[in-house]
Amino acid sequence: MLINGQTGISISADDRGLMYGDGVFRTIRVAGGKLLHWHLHYQKLQHDCSALNIVCPSKQLLSSELDQMIRNEADAIAKVIITRGESTRGYAPSSNSGVTRILTIHAAPQYPDSYALSGIPVHICRLRLGHQPLLAGIKHLNRLENVLAAAEWNSADFAEGILLDQAGNLVEGTRSNLFLVKNGDLSTPELTRCGVAGVQRDRVMDWARQSGVVCHVKDLSLEDMLSSDEAFLVNSVIDLWPIREMAAYKRNSFPISLLIQNGLKHGAD
Amino acid sequence: MLINGQTGISISADDRGLMYGDGVFRTIRVAGGKLLHWHLHYQKLQHDCSALNIVCPSKQLLSSELDQMIRNEADAIAKVIITRGESTRGYAPSSNSGVTRILTIHAAPQYPDSYALSGIPVHICRLRLGHQPLLAGIKHLNRLENVLAAAEWNSADFAEGILLDQAGNLVEGTRSNLFLVKNGDLSTPELTRCGVAGVQRDRVMDWARQSGVVCHVKDLSLEDMLSSDEAFLVNSVIDLWPIREMAAYKRNSFPISLLIQNGLKHGAD
Repeated sequence: MLINGQTGISISADDRGLMYGDGVFRTIRVAGGKLLHWHLHYQKLQHDCSALNIVCPSKQLLSSELDQMIRNEADAIAKVIITRGESTRGYAPSSNSGVTRILTIHAAPQYPDSYALSGIPVHICRLRLGHQPLLAGIKHLNRLENVLAAAEWNSADFAEGILLDQAGNLVEGTRSNLFLVKNGDLSTPELTRCGVAGVQRDRVMDWARQSGVVCHVKDLSLEDMLSSDEAFLVNSVIDLWPIREMAAYKRNSFPISLLIQNGLKHGAD
Repeated sequence: MLINGQTGISISADDRGLMYGDGVFRTIRVAGGKLLHWHLHYQKLQHDCSALNIVCPSKQLLSSELDQMIRNEADAIAKVIITRGESTRGYAPSSNSGVTRILTIHAAPQYPDSYALSGIPVHICRLRLGHQPLLAGIKHLNRLENVLAAAEWNSADFAEGILLDQAGNLVEGTRSNLFLVKNGDLSTPELTRCGVAGVQRDRVMDWARQSGVVCHVKDLSLEDMLSSDEAFLVNSVIDLWPIREMAAYKRNSFPISLLIQNGLKHGAD
């Protein structure tokens, strides 16, 4: 673990990341000693820092620190946390609060091959996401909704949970983004009121553009999901998992999901 | 600072308090080497931990650790943070994740006497709080809404900001609870969809019960505030500040606010 460039395992208990969740993060796949899609992840980091008015560390600095850490990692997950640093007590950010950067490496989780190839069963979360347009799309450190949602099911029964918002719109998985397939078109929920806009979601939309496939970004309901031809979840760690089963929803074949899964494997940064 | 009973200044960067804001806190006034209203604060801590399914440390343990720290403090602020501790990566709490307790002492902030006696000017925040009934009322570590709201004004111009929710209901101040006075009755916003239910809010409601004053807990609008006879803000650090001025709202006399302010000073724990 590197904390502000120093090997370490701890941060100040006065860090605003702890006190208020005042920061952002990224989870990045590492393969063959290289960060996958680092360019896209850094763009998101910059965007998210900017939305919270946090000074984002330079790409050069983060790249060089991450490179040190992952050089010998064949298959791992890097996590980058950027917080607003320490400050005096009180919610208002002080003008001189610095930035804390925390870089960690974890073993890549091992999922059954069947998740990617034969799809997964998903739980429909009872927790409904609240709307906060000023935080929507941002991968920030206020993740209690995700914690409570993920506590709803036993991981032996479901591989992921689907989140709706308080208005009943589909939003995402607890740690992934959601796409529906209908008559050959893709659609994915608007993330302007809640949710996290992941790098892999952008990559699917890029794949669609390059492949001449229409992808709608719009409000979607659970009914849209039940009447879809396929549905799938994506993030940088799992890549793409088709949804096999969800309450009354069952699919045994998902040709388009698998086509995109393959397309993402060979996509450029 | 005491962290899990040890003198220290840092916590593990794998703590869920940092990673997800997965924890709760209290801010408690210390006077003459004693915690004010500790019994009420501990009740809230227990309630909030329970709502998140975090194991709350015993009152005895926290009391004895806090007593060590505050013994020589004439006038200070104690902060207690309880997080779900460290866990493996992932939102779902693992069954064996422990608990981290972080106890800190800060100097009491010095506010002008005029705030309590002559009232304060407040800013009406542009940020509107999102609804999340599962987190409403809880003083948890996901406080980005408060951070963004508090960044809206310059502290030289306003002493506090008033928060409305996305439906336009009055909720609270960014770090305080709100009461209105109308025809001798009190009212305070429902906190079942968002907001933090502070100890001092309970103490005002107790004061009202004991004083034979009606206190309504209900949905209130900005119009209700503008047409009120008085409005005031409370928390454990500031006690009670009448609101003197807010956009079109101006009050030069607030007899009931000052009566309650006095009642709270002499109230039992």
